[in-house]
Amino acid sequence: MKRPFKRILYGGDYNPNQWGKEVWKEDMRIFKDARINSATINVFSWAKIQPSEDTYNFTELDEVIAMLSQENYDIVLATSTAALPAWMVKRYPEVARTDYEGRHHKFGQRHNACPNSLVFQKFASRLAGKLAERYGNNPHVTCWHISNEYGGECYCENCEKAFRVWLREKYQTLDELNKAWNTEFWGHTIYDWDEVVLPDALGDGIEDAAEPHMTAFAGLSIDYCRFNSDGMLNNFKMEKEAIRKFDKETPITTNMMGTFKGLDYFKWAKEMDVISWDNYPSYNTPWSLVAMKHDLMRGLKDQPFMLMEQTPSQQNWQPYNSLKRPGQMRAQSYQTMAHGADTIQFFQLRRSVGGCEKFHGAVIAHAGTENTRVFREVKQLGEELEKLSNVIPGTVNEAEVGVIFDWDNYWALEYTSGPSISLKYVDQIHRYYRYFYDHNMGVTMIPVDADFSKYKMIVAPVLYMVKPGMKEALEKYVKNGGILVTTYMSGIVGESDNVYLGGYPGPLKEMAGIWVEEIDALAPEQYNIVTFKDGSQSKCKIVCDLMHLEGAEALGEYAEDFYAGMPAVTRHDYGKGKLYYIGSCMEVVGTDKILSMAAEDARVNPVAENGNGLEIVKRNGEEKSFYFVMNFKDEDLKIPEEFAGKMDLLSGNAVEKGEMLPKFGVKILEE
Amino acid sequence: MKRPFKRILYGGDYNPNQWGKEVWKEDMRIFKDARINSATINVFSWAKIQPSEDTYNFTELDEVIAMLSQENYDIVLATSTAALPAWMVKRYPEVARTDYEGRHHKFGQRHNACPNSLVFQKFASRLAGKLAERYGNNPHVTCWHISNEYGGECYCENCEKAFRVWLREKYQTLDELNKAWNTEFWGHTIYDWDEVVLPDALGDGIEDAAEPHMTAFAGLSIDYCRFNSDGMLNNFKMEKEAIRKFDKETPITTNMMGTFKGLDYFKWAKEMDVISWDNYPSYNTPWSLVAMKHDLMRGLKDQPFMLMEQTPSQQNWQPYNSLKRPGQMRAQSYQTMAHGADTIQFFQLRRSVGGCEKFHGAVIAHAGTENTRVFREVKQLGEELEKLSNVIPGTVNEAEVGVIFDWDNYWALEYTSGPSISLKYVDQIHRYYRYFYDHNMGVTMIPVDADFSKYKMIVAPVLYMVKPGMKEALEKYVKNGGILVTTYMSGIVGESDNVYLGGYPGPLKEMAGIWVEEIDALAPEQYNIVTFKDGSQSKCKIVCDLMHLEGAEALGEYAEDFYAGMPAVTRHDYGKGKLYYIGSCMEVVGTDKILSMAAEDARVNPVAENGNGLEIVKRNGEEKSFYFVMNFKDEDLKIPEEFAGKMDLLSGNAVEKGEMLPKFGVKILEE
Amino acid sequence: MKRPFKRILYGGDYNPNQWGKEVWKEDMRIFKDARINSATINVFSWAKIQPSEDTYNFTELDEVIAMLSQENYDIVLATSTAALPAWMVKRYPEVARTDYEGRHHKFGQRHNACPNSLVFQKFASRLAGKLAERYGNNPHVTCWHISNEYGGECYCENCEKAFRVWLREKYQTLDELNKAWNTEFWGHTIYDWDEVVLPDALGDGIEDAAEPHMTAFAGLSIDYCRFNSDGMLNNFKMEKEAIRKFDKETPITTNMMGTFKGLDYFKWAKEMDVISWDNYPSYNTPWSLVAMKHDLMRGLKDQPFMLMEQTPSQQNWQPYNSLKRPGQMRAQSYQTMAHGADTIQFFQLRRSVGGCEKFHGAVIAHAGTENTRVFREVKQLGEELEKLSNVIPGTVNEAEVGVIFDWDNYWALEYTSGPSISLKYVDQIHRYYRYFYDHNMGVTMIPVDADFSKYKMIVAPVLYMVKPGMKEALEKYVKNGGILVTTYMSGIVGESDNVYLGGYPGPLKEMAGIWVEEIDALAPEQYNIVTFKDGSQSKCKIVCDLMHLEGAEALGEYAEDFYAGMPAVTRHDYGKGKLYYIGSCMEVVGTDKILSMAAEDARVNPVAENGNGLEIVKRNGEEKSFYFVMNFKDEDLKIPEEFAGKMDLLSGNAVEKGEMLPKFGVKILEE
Repeated sequence: MKRPFKRILYGGDYNPNQWGKEVWKEDMRIFKDARINSATINVFSWAKIQPSEDTYNFTELDEVIAMLSQENYDIVLATSTAALPAWMVKRYPEVARTDYEGRHHKFGQRHNACPNSLVFQKFASRLAGKLAERYGNNPHVTCWHISNEYGGECYCENCEKAFRVWLREKYQTLDELNKAWNTEFWGHTIYDWDEVVLPDALGDGIEDAAEPHMTAFAGLSIDYCRFNSDGMLNNFKMEKEAIRKFDKETPITTNMMGTFKGLDYFKWAKEMDVISWDNYPSYNTPWSLVAMKHDLMRGLKDQPFMLMEQTPSQQNWQPYNSLKRPGQMRAQSYQTMAHGADTIQFFQLRRSVGGCEKFHGAVIAHAGTENTRVFREVKQLGEELEKLSNVIPGTVNEAEVGVIFDWDNYWALEYTSGPSISLKYVDQIHRYYRYFYDHNMGVTMIPVDADFSKYKMIVAPVLYMVKPGMKEALEKYVKNGGILVTTYMSGIVGESDNVYLGGYPGPLKEMAGIWVEEIDALAPEQYNIVTFKDGSQSKCKIVCDLMHLEGAEALGEYAEDFYAGMPAVTRHDYGKGKLYYIGSCMEVVGTDKILSMAAEDARVNPVAENGNGLEIVKRNGEEKSFYFVMNFKDEDLKIPEEFAGKMDLLSGNAVEKGEMLPKFGVKILEE
Repeated sequence: MKRPFKRILYGGDYNPNQWGKEVWKEDMRIFKDARINSATINVFSWAKIQPSEDTYNFTELDEVIAMLSQENYDIVLATSTAALPAWMVKRYPEVARTDYEGRHHKFGQRHNACPNSLVFQKFASRLAGKLAERYGNNPHVTCWHISNEYGGECYCENCEKAFRVWLREKYQTLDELNKAWNTEFWGHTIYDWDEVVLPDALGDGIEDAAEPHMTAFAGLSIDYCRFNSDGMLNNFKMEKEAIRKFDKETPITTNMMGTFKGLDYFKWAKEMDVISWDNYPSYNTPWSLVAMKHDLMRGLKDQPFMLMEQTPSQQNWQPYNSLKRPGQMRAQSYQTMAHGADTIQFFQLRRSVGGCEKFHGAVIAHAGTENTRVFREVKQLGEELEKLSNVIPGTVNEAEVGVIFDWDNYWALEYTSGPSISLKYVDQIHRYYRYFYDHNMGVTMIPVDADFSKYKMIVAPVLYMVKPGMKEALEKYVKNGGILVTTYMSGIVGESDNVYLGGYPGPLKEMAGIWVEEIDALAPEQYNIVTFKDGSQSKCKIVCDLMHLEGAEALGEYAEDFYAGMPAVTRHDYGKGKLYYIGSCMEVVGTDKILSMAAEDARVNPVAENGNGLEIVKRNGEEKSFYFVMNFKDEDLKIPEEFAGKMDLLSGNAVEKGEMLPKFGVKILEE
Repeated sequence: MKRPFKRILYGGDYNPNQWGKEVWKEDMRIFKDARINSATINVFSWAKIQPSEDTYNFTELDEVIAMLSQENYDIVLATSTAALPAWMVKRYPEVARTDYEGRHHKFGQRHNACPNSLVFQKFASRLAGKLAERYGNNPHVTCWHISNEYGGECYCENCEKAFRVWLREKYQTLDELNKAWNTEFWGHTIYDWDEVVLPDALGDGIEDAAEPHMTAFAGLSIDYCRFNSDGMLNNFKMEKEAIRKFDKETPITTNMMGTFKGLDYFKWAKEMDVISWDNYPSYNTPWSLVAMKHDLMRGLKDQPFMLMEQTPSQQNWQPYNSLKRPGQMRAQSYQTMAHGADTIQFFQLRRSVGGCEKFHGAVIAHAGTENTRVFREVKQLGEELEKLSNVIPGTVNEAEVGVIFDWDNYWALEYTSGPSISLKYVDQIHRYYRYFYDHNMGVTMIPVDADFSKYKMIVAPVLYMVKPGMKEALEKYVKNGGILVTTYMSGIVGESDNVYLGGYPGPLKEMAGIWVEEIDALAPEQYNIVTFKDGSQSKCKIVCDLMHLEGAEALGEYAEDFYAGMPAVTRHDYGKGKLYYIGSCMEVVGTDKILSMAAEDARVNPVAENGNGLEIVKRNGEEKSFYFVMNFKDEDLKIPEEFAGKMDLLSGNAVEKGEMLPKFGVKILEE
């Protein structure tokens, strides 16, 4: 595997433009003390660099880059196009967005450009080109960072026209379009491409819907999501091309946001040289969910990634911005690295004095001193990472389990009306991912078109939309001995959200050996119970499939209600493999029961036989492998016996037999 | 009583236009198996029938109607005008609506035409006429179904102008208008009709109001409701007239929605030949509320009605779309029939593949087979209804109790500011209706201008608005021996929401023999207690009238707070009758106590002396009468002794002494 | 102190324009019975007085004023400019407002004029002038009442232009503006004044923000608040000037709303001759909060004020409009007077028949009679006030404690993003004010530029923004022996919401003798515990400062979490005085502990040594002083022994030893 960087980048967002020069010098001194070796710059400087339509002024940026180069920083150079200059919105009002409510915006906020605005496209690519021309051959510019946290939607007339072009390209004929969206329903037949209207609050939007931006036609909404994702991706590619005219090699990225709903990151990943993302858990986010997001970000290209942003301490935009506890930032950083990161970057290096992020944590606090707890923790980590710089990068995560994550499914499941508003995509995926996290089994989050043969076991929760080719690919996988786990709300619709007729789970029906006749939805105060063959039980909620065996065997049955005795969980031998089907959303005990049976069938090897509650993740190098052993629980936990005697890279000491690891303790053990 | 149809229509919404012809044949086969004899067609086909301004294409509809005619269906033929074609909105943007927020809508959704749009009016009536001309003399076209679930509002400029015309007609002079709306308050005097503004968020709307669309002037808002209801009714009448040019006889209906707030259904009923409605209870809707809605729908014309839509199983648009339990659909259908339905129709006959209702239950599931629980239940019911077809239609419900339901009161009570946001009209009416439901006493929901003399007892809860003539009519009723029950929040305002001066309950004060000096409002965590003469007690909430006896006797007194000892419930002899006044919103025990006294005074005869918790309803024929005995409780219940020996039309067996009826069990007993 | 009025005004809003003349006569008779001597008229009569652009018609107003003059009323004459006439909005649509969502409003509601509309300004000042010309020399016109409850915002283009002018005047250069708003953050640099955009939902607004109208740039939002407050104040001054052309002497006021967020009342107070306000607590508002608002209103000018509005009984616009309990209105009126009111006025004198306030309590109910509980209580109070009229006015409240209240802080604290959405300004101030209320220590709510030397103790909770000069003023105060109490979230930003660098609490750091290194935010379910030196403890919530002693002593330490053992509360000797710093939001027991130490240090004298739970407030006259002793608790409370033998002005009896005061009981004791 090609390493994108020569060392572990350690640093983060740096905005010297917000400060006087005397501060810059102090910054260099303090950062060096913390072993910071990288800075992400120029993220929001468009207005400064281009003060008017025909004027560019790189004076300050030249100075910043010169200083950082002299200090031998790895510079992550942003293109600054994530926030429009005020003058541009004033002069070209169409460059701003129109929101879902149909309101055209004025100047303000960030991430505010209409992705289909020719004005934006012209100025953004021109700026990216100018930056590449000027700085592209600076060896300290280690990575390009296009725009920032792409996201949001635009519903302006210009986007409406672009949507029609996109649709025409996709469907070729109106007949195909009408069929795809099933416009016969509610008499929505389109006779002219110009009759297509964006799915906003003034079009097909459903007022007070359970999910934001739901419409009467999920097929239309899903196509809009694809169009919007593609449109922003075009913006990215446009800037990338402008850079590539002058800089052929430096890796190009943009910072992603985990399970962010708006963009099809798997599609984006194909255009990116390296994945980077911003990790901002809340005080009560489960650590398994954080891990899942890392595994998703790594899975996008199945390659190590950059942690572009995390806060050294607290945030500002959450309702309750708790401090990271002592050791938490360090443990969280190692968790990130364990799951595939080769960089640790903060937002931000110095806390700003004004604007809405002034209470966002930073390496240098408002106090302006290195004499803070947060700085000391940053420094400790910097010293450690310096030692790991030639050890960890280049090693890889190798997972035996693939969990499917798919943005089309995300959109389709959440935009469909019925059977229950409690079905949220990320929550559903996480309910199954968690099992592997708890059992120290490596997972890669994979796309629907992954090479399944790489995995002993594939988990595809709520695989609601089954796109062309997928039935065949999954059948081939199972026939060849793969273990596939899927659940309720799978195999329901095709790529345009039209239902597969002939009984659920549609294309998966034969392979699953079942027929789901009905889907009951339970209100939050309701539940059923699944009884397994051994008599053990688990509550189940949200939805209950009423299914019939057509070749499969029942592993559990419902214990309550009129469908008591009907199968709730099944297993079907198919070719050399097996398909597990979970018919209701069970509590942890039930989910664990089924997944442990499946994992046993698949002979999945945990990274450690019994982690005692510790998170244990392995990265494999060509010669050596490393176990990241981390404690995210509230009590001291025993390091598994099997690790006794192994060397800890961080402390330099071997693990003792019976050694305990305290909360937020971390060991990196060499195999 | 004239029977609108020769048999019990059994079928529902059918959209073969969404399917290939091979499916049509399969449909016919399967429907026949279920004894389906009716189909509602063409509900959302405007775009297909009229693909452009001057083109009409009836080819497919001809085929559908030919097929159904050949199969001897009773066709309910819709006019398709409930959803605008896309091309029409593109060509005539003004045909779409402007919402309460002032946003003009683009193409999308359904029920989307501005009721005052001349474009809509022209095209809609032309379409209705063309359909009648083409199909009106087909003997299988048994019923016309205009538009669909009329509702919603439009606040466009065109509607504003129409509102001014409507007001001018109503008030004649601006002096009258200003007086009606009491515009002296807050200096709202109108000097020119053109100064009148619609009551939307940009006009007199109250931001973040407890009730949607509240304004500073309830009189204005109520007039807008009347205007909007009239405007849509005009749309209905316009289509009806267009049909009547070609078809003089076939009954014409539109499907209503129970206690839907937006339209004055009593006014609409006068223009409809037969009432039809769509019954969609949630998993936790009280059965008594469902029954009340049936009694309201029957009450609209005091005639049997059509159940135009119900789901065979689940819905899609509720938060949690539970399955109907085995037997539930059947029991619910008989409940509907018991309360006056002569048809049982489903939405829909075949589940659609796409669009927002694809998870809405249907007779034929996505599996496409008759081998489903739902289908078997539909078929069983079909077989039973076939046997009842010459028995039940033509029989009538005869109630001794009238409960007043009035849309003006609905609007006025919910648009008034104070004394409590907890006062919701339907909830309030249901609190009193429930007593009669629980005690198997037949109720008709009646308008304020009903012939009261038909009822032994009239219940008028929260009769907030007392319109001209009503005082006299009620006084006459009571003088002649009627028993009238009314409550807090009665007799407060006249038809323009201006208060009757001289003390509450205004025009009812003399008849009630009380004076309500003050109205206390209780927060949700607060309550008072009513102590009755026999020492028994009931909690009471929401509002407490502080009243003085002026001839009435106190039946109960408050036990708490500074008004402890003041009367809370009174009875007044007036002429040969009595007026009961309930001064606070009591819990069940208190409501039951008073209503049972009143019912005894009125000599109301329950359909069964003691129903043991069963719902028992009677329909009377010219020769025979029928008891519908139904169990909607969670336990088996004993059929009253008095029914022992009576023949059950469904099973063909006589009721045995001590026989139990399980949940969702039904018997139709011949008297 | 100059007394604005010769007697205690007793009366309130009177709208004879809504009634026929026969009612006027009846009003006069009934009001006289209640000892009403004042009426506030013409509040919403613009449409009637000026029926069209060039026509004025004072006929009715002449009659009203003639009648009231003849009856020797003190007339509070409003200018009627708080609600636009319909014709004006029709003719000049720009006179209406554009809301935060960017929607321009039509005619409707009240408080609806764009403050920067030249049309409004022209017509409003012309009307005020005409009224003054006509009635200004009528000796019965005792007070001018401009507009009504000023408030709300306008975001129209016209306001946008005015905002730019306001900014230009304030900042002079764009460099200063950019620096003030820290526009380098997110690249918001402004190069032309015309690029400035109002901070609404279409500009920098944050969607679904925790606080309404939050934006990405608090500095911009705060400036908009200042601008909007100034703009409305200009409207006030403009009308005032128009009046002063014809009437040089009659006091001019407008009715305020306690802690209303929208306007900087301290700035307004400078332009007002006398403060008046509208007091509308809810059924569950703490009495201490009501008292605090009174002390704020009195503090605005440090002078007695007018109670312009309260309801004799219930309101209409609260969710649950409870009745005032017997004696409550009287006790509440005396509480108002105790804290500095010299008038007691109601909204309103006669309950209106229509419009959204028809259920708002009034002296004359809809029954139209004086035979009501409410009227009897009004009359009793009237009789009592008549006796006090030459006793109370002219006496003053003299407080030893000053609590700082500052609208800039209000805006800044609530518009900042982080650390916790639970920090609400009024709630925070009240948490500290409550201590003094409970301990009968007189408080004046003071502005940041008050003469601190008048107070033994200054409490400055959440003094988030420290404006120029304040550091010096507070340091001088403490150096000279003052006791200053401040808390978490103090000393953070300067006047433009930019952070003071060098460590929190910024300019207060030296004086406090501490350094706050970090601020932890606790979710609602979390808490820490403070342990005081004596071992007692108090829970603390919302935020926890992690601080270091730099000269101060710790009075309490955290007991939990990783900062257990760190100081939570400190005291620092500074010059002859002391600064108390409270680092977390403690429960009552902790707050009381600290404030009692501080009060002891400051030698604050309670009005009564031990009030036994009674509220006791003192007004001092030149010769005599008066104790208002009031019971707002749910049980009878013992009057302190020290008052035994003192004469009660209300009953005419001396207090007996051990005498109990029932709930809502009041005594006014002469010293």
